[in-house]
Amino acid sequence: MLDVCLPGTGGMMPLPDRWLSCCWLEYQGRALLIDCGEGTQIALREADCKLSRLEVLLLTHYHADHIAGLPGLLLTLGNHGKTTPLTLIGPKGLQAVVSALTIIAPALPYRLELIEIKNDAEGCLEAEDIAVSYLPLQHSTRCLGYKVSLRRKPVFNPEKAQRLGIPKPLYKHLHAGETVTLEDGRQITPDQVLDGARKPLTVCYITDSVYTESMAAFAAGADLLICEGMYGDEELRGKTEDKGHMVFGDAARLAAGAKVGKLWLTHFSPALKDPAAYLPGAKAIFENTAVGYDGIKINL
Amino acid sequence: MLDVCLPGTGGMMPLPDRWLSCCWLEYQGRALLIDCGEGTQIALREADCKLSRLEVLLLTHYHADHIAGLPGLLLTLGNHGKTTPLTLIGPKGLQAVVSALTIIAPALPYRLELIEIKNDAEGCLEAEDIAVSYLPLQHSTRCLGYKVSLRRKPVFNPEKAQRLGIPKPLYKHLHAGETVTLEDGRQITPDQVLDGARKPLTVCYITDSVYTESMAAFAAGADLLICEGMYGDEELRGKTEDKGHMVFGDAARLAAGAKVGKLWLTHFSPALKDPAAYLPGAKAIFENTAVGYDGIKINL
Repeated sequence: MLDVCLPGTGGMMPLPDRWLSCCWLEYQGRALLIDCGEGTQIALREADCKLSRLEVLLLTHYHADHIAGLPGLLLTLGNHGKTTPLTLIGPKGLQAVVSALTIIAPALPYRLELIEIKNDAEGCLEAEDIAVSYLPLQHSTRCLGYKVSLRRKPVFNPEKAQRLGIPKPLYKHLHAGETVTLEDGRQITPDQVLDGARKPLTVCYITDSVYTESMAAFAAGADLLICEGMYGDEELRGKTEDKGHMVFGDAARLAAGAKVGKLWLTHFSPALKDPAAYLPGAKAIFENTAVGYDGIKINL
Repeated sequence: MLDVCLPGTGGMMPLPDRWLSCCWLEYQGRALLIDCGEGTQIALREADCKLSRLEVLLLTHYHADHIAGLPGLLLTLGNHGKTTPLTLIGPKGLQAVVSALTIIAPALPYRLELIEIKNDAEGCLEAEDIAVSYLPLQHSTRCLGYKVSLRRKPVFNPEKAQRLGIPKPLYKHLHAGETVTLEDGRQITPDQVLDGARKPLTVCYITDSVYTESMAAFAAGADLLICEGMYGDEELRGKTEDKGHMVFGDAARLAAGAKVGKLWLTHFSPALKDPAAYLPGAKAIFENTAVGYDGIKINL
């Protein structure tokens, strides 16, 4: 129902064997991308993410490793025939940064719609079937964590429908929330055949930041938490904190505290050659942890 | 004496198997780079070009596929410990473009020295041992071709030195252009032991442009001409000309007319999957043609 992929998992600079961290979320042929560093358009191609489906780009912050790929991506979208608008969402400064970077992407065949989150508080943007929540993080610059929640239809109960003698062609209308009238004149409302609301599917994306108290409530119960781990070694926490980053253990403790379904680690330092070597330490804190790698995918 | 490498050979957009076109020139541990599209910093690493040696960046023009990698490269140079200035040379607009793109690379540990070529005429920038000439090209935006000429010392003739009875330890001083005094009081001037001036080593880099009359004189006698060929097929000339580009045949005719030593083709369209298939046609016009590929190198 919701496809999630990390086309890149690196921090700081792109490497020959690791693209910069970003996240692709796709449902029903519509896609959101979180962050766009240098080379992200190539990472997307390698991970088989269909550029033509991209509707929304969320930006966590404006450090180059999270946004330098923007002009190239915008131009490539145009070269691939995009004509529908692209929505860009990001913290304060979005207008200024996009306007500066598009000096080299001046004529696009589609519209950019900017949503600049100017305040420094938690909040939520609602659309028909999806909600994007944001949380201010603690980094060397203004930075947002994101939570994407996809609403799901309630479960349709065919036994209830059968007992009421409803013809099968009407099932889909009831599942879509419509009231139907049977041939005998009876009106059937959706609540008579649906089994109540289902929890939305939720993916939480947190980078770049030190650990903060507010993260656990924000990520609480997420199906998947994708969280930065700049280094695996706990002893490097001092070093990462200075630069506004976390180690694997911080992310694992957050996952445990927030009781998420799964944790994927990402945004590794270029100096961290083999992130998987530190997986056992993270799993000891939160069992359902995976070390992200370029191209890791899941269908939730 | 002069190492030349094409870390990337693509045009328009970076591909999983082809970096954007750029050129690395290195002599005596000092390097110049021509153009810096998205991903060029990774292409340089893959081609084993030492970033620490970079002193000058020449920009042909400000289309994203030639400059979008600038902020990332600048930051990575800083992360690698660069503290000496980086000189940026480019056509009119350099100041504005660099100032816009560095919004995401605001604090560098070294100085940027900008040389903006504001006029639309041919010209030359001279340094101690090198000259950078530029030629306005004909593209959809202001664009420059470059010619890098490395001066060489005259050849030292040891037979002449022996006949004059000069002790060997003095050879290097004479070769460096110094006059020396022998023990018997005779003064020897460099011209007595040197065999006259050698032609500078010259590399000419021409992209993006349609063919223009002025190119042949500019490239005349170059040891190596690196020239764009957007497509191999002659029949696509109309298509490439509209977009301000050349086909292989245009480049080969230029090489023949300019009587260069070698021709390397570069800046291939993403649609040109196998540029080598069109090599025979280009060789029929100019025999010493090679189809560039990411990482192609030569020592001149």
